[in-house]
Amino acid sequence: MAFQTPILPTFDESAAEAARRRQDRLTKPAHSLGRLEELSIQLAGITGQPNPSVLRKAVIVMAGDHGVTAEGVSAYPAEVTPQMVLNFLHGGAAINVLARQADARVVVVDVGVAHDLPDHPKLTSRKVARGTRNMAQGPAMTQAEVETAIEAGIELVQVEIERGLDLVATGDMGIGNTTASSALTAVFTGLPVERVTGRGTGLDDGGLARKIEVIERSLRVNCPDPNHPLEVLCKVGGLEIAGLVGVILGAAARRVPVVLDGFISGAAALTAYALNPAVQPFLIASHQSVEAGHRAILDHLKLRPLLNLDLRLGEGSGAVLAFSLIEAAVRILKEMATFDQAGVSEKHG
Amino acid sequence: MAFQTPILPTFDESAAEAARRRQDRLTKPAHSLGRLEELSIQLAGITGQPNPSVLRKAVIVMAGDHGVTAEGVSAYPAEVTPQMVLNFLHGGAAINVLARQADARVVVVDVGVAHDLPDHPKLTSRKVARGTRNMAQGPAMTQAEVETAIEAGIELVQVEIERGLDLVATGDMGIGNTTASSALTAVFTGLPVERVTGRGTGLDDGGLARKIEVIERSLRVNCPDPNHPLEVLCKVGGLEIAGLVGVILGAAARRVPVVLDGFISGAAALTAYALNPAVQPFLIASHQSVEAGHRAILDHLKLRPLLNLDLRLGEGSGAVLAFSLIEAAVRILKEMATFDQAGVSEKHG
Repeated sequence: MAFQTPILPTFDESAAEAARRRQDRLTKPAHSLGRLEELSIQLAGITGQPNPSVLRKAVIVMAGDHGVTAEGVSAYPAEVTPQMVLNFLHGGAAINVLARQADARVVVVDVGVAHDLPDHPKLTSRKVARGTRNMAQGPAMTQAEVETAIEAGIELVQVEIERGLDLVATGDMGIGNTTASSALTAVFTGLPVERVTGRGTGLDDGGLARKIEVIERSLRVNCPDPNHPLEVLCKVGGLEIAGLVGVILGAAARRVPVVLDGFISGAAALTAYALNPAVQPFLIASHQSVEAGHRAILDHLKLRPLLNLDLRLGEGSGAVLAFSLIEAAVRILKEMATFDQAGVSEKHG
Repeated sequence: MAFQTPILPTFDESAAEAARRRQDRLTKPAHSLGRLEELSIQLAGITGQPNPSVLRKAVIVMAGDHGVTAEGVSAYPAEVTPQMVLNFLHGGAAINVLARQADARVVVVDVGVAHDLPDHPKLTSRKVARGTRNMAQGPAMTQAEVETAIEAGIELVQVEIERGLDLVATGDMGIGNTTASSALTAVFTGLPVERVTGRGTGLDDGGLARKIEVIERSLRVNCPDPNHPLEVLCKVGGLEIAGLVGVILGAAARRVPVVLDGFISGAAALTAYALNPAVQPFLIASHQSVEAGHRAILDHLKLRPLLNLDLRLGEGSGAVLAFSLIEAAVRILKEMATFDQAGVSEKHG
């Protein structure tokens, strides 16, 4: 059976309009809370609730390896992927610290790590393959692998929704995954590779030049067609990116707002958008990464980031950091007094 | 006795360096948490603690009225100042909502409201005058008034420090106070009035033109000299702005990081900086306001805002919103595992 992109609901304009009207009655000059007001209105439209809540939060961190690391495209060795997964499980990584602060669950998923990971109560094992193949030599994945990874993402976000979920962040771990993300970004935006390729975890100038050359070679070898998004993902994507495509589509299908992290999450969102543009209103861009291609993704998706803090870590770190702003937006809508309630005079006629 | 600007400690470079070295040992690519890393290093240098905490937080909201409102410079009537103070006391304003979320105390101070406010357990009354005089006709305040307001700010932040304070935000309420702030900004930055004057709570084009004309007239009438900052504050400042100058200097004197809100807080910081430039390292800019003059203030103070969310409310709202980012910065420093602890490989030699 061929993979079917989930059918997505429409943005609830009447819930959004109710939120907008309430914002205009709260004791502050109209629009003086700027993007917090817009966020609260977007959350209302996504959830269909004029006065939404964001009490139950999770970040789903998809981990996978990349065969293209054989080409020397990363500043860190590939063994760091499983090492960092263990760090996530032990609570020592940045995403753990930020999720504890935000009171968010961390769901760590092995969707394609190239090493065998030990059983651990906090590890969700949905390993599709031991890493992707080297995209500089041919397709990184088969269509069956990509579909299995996307379906894993859809299923896992449904599990979280059953547990209770008002807000989901996308996170990633995978040495080499900025290389795949730059390739996807070049294909879907049509921009030249050098415009959408950055230093990843810290390449020097020579490393960056090699990375660009490897991506250009991968595109020549595979000839991905942007009109066939699943095929693009097979050829130059990654298992964790495919998993995140599933998380994004699965959450949107159930009216759960998706808070995107940086470049890798952005590449997943770009792919999800190519599969079904109706996903766009369900997306919130948490931050703008230092990675060169992220700006191009946000422009393509018409998303404006909430934070610009020179982050480039991944793991979902920027997305979870933005949770507090989103929570502030809905609390303002819910808890502030109106002009009538507080007896405050309004603007001069 | 003439007012003495508090003596300020120096930024603790060795504590900052210890924090910087620890950041480089944490399990993430070097500098990949960007400005969060810088913030943690700044907090270490401010507090003198290599591993600082920000558990105890407060926002001090100074309220005062402005005689210049007689010139029709605000979209809202002056009676909104006391009405909003009551809203703060009853917990219905944006600052209350955001402070509840951030677990921060709200200290509401009447330093110059033009109406008599009822006794209330949550109101700190340090009224210096019933509003300022109309600066378009002469000095807004006497030197004694300004000094009393600054000293009130210094004393009140000391009281909060005695209660326990790791982070303080500056907040303001005062119909007409963007007019005073634009005047202060023009004087201290040397920029033309029209470059540093915005729509405040929502002036139309005609209102904005009138506001610019009133500020230019106020500067002609008073001839403030930027080399005499206290005199500038007397002539075209405000009582709540003077109070915030005291909060800023008083906190820095005790090594408590000062999180600045938007334009009004920025004008207070500009004045504090003119009085004693050693205050600069103790300042954190929470956001960049929509108000035109705020960018000029941040440039002058060499501060880079953490948020850019099109806010223009005041009350300390943007500053308290940024508390969670600052808390994230210090938690990252405190709680993340090092490469050695987690057994994660480092970058290729």
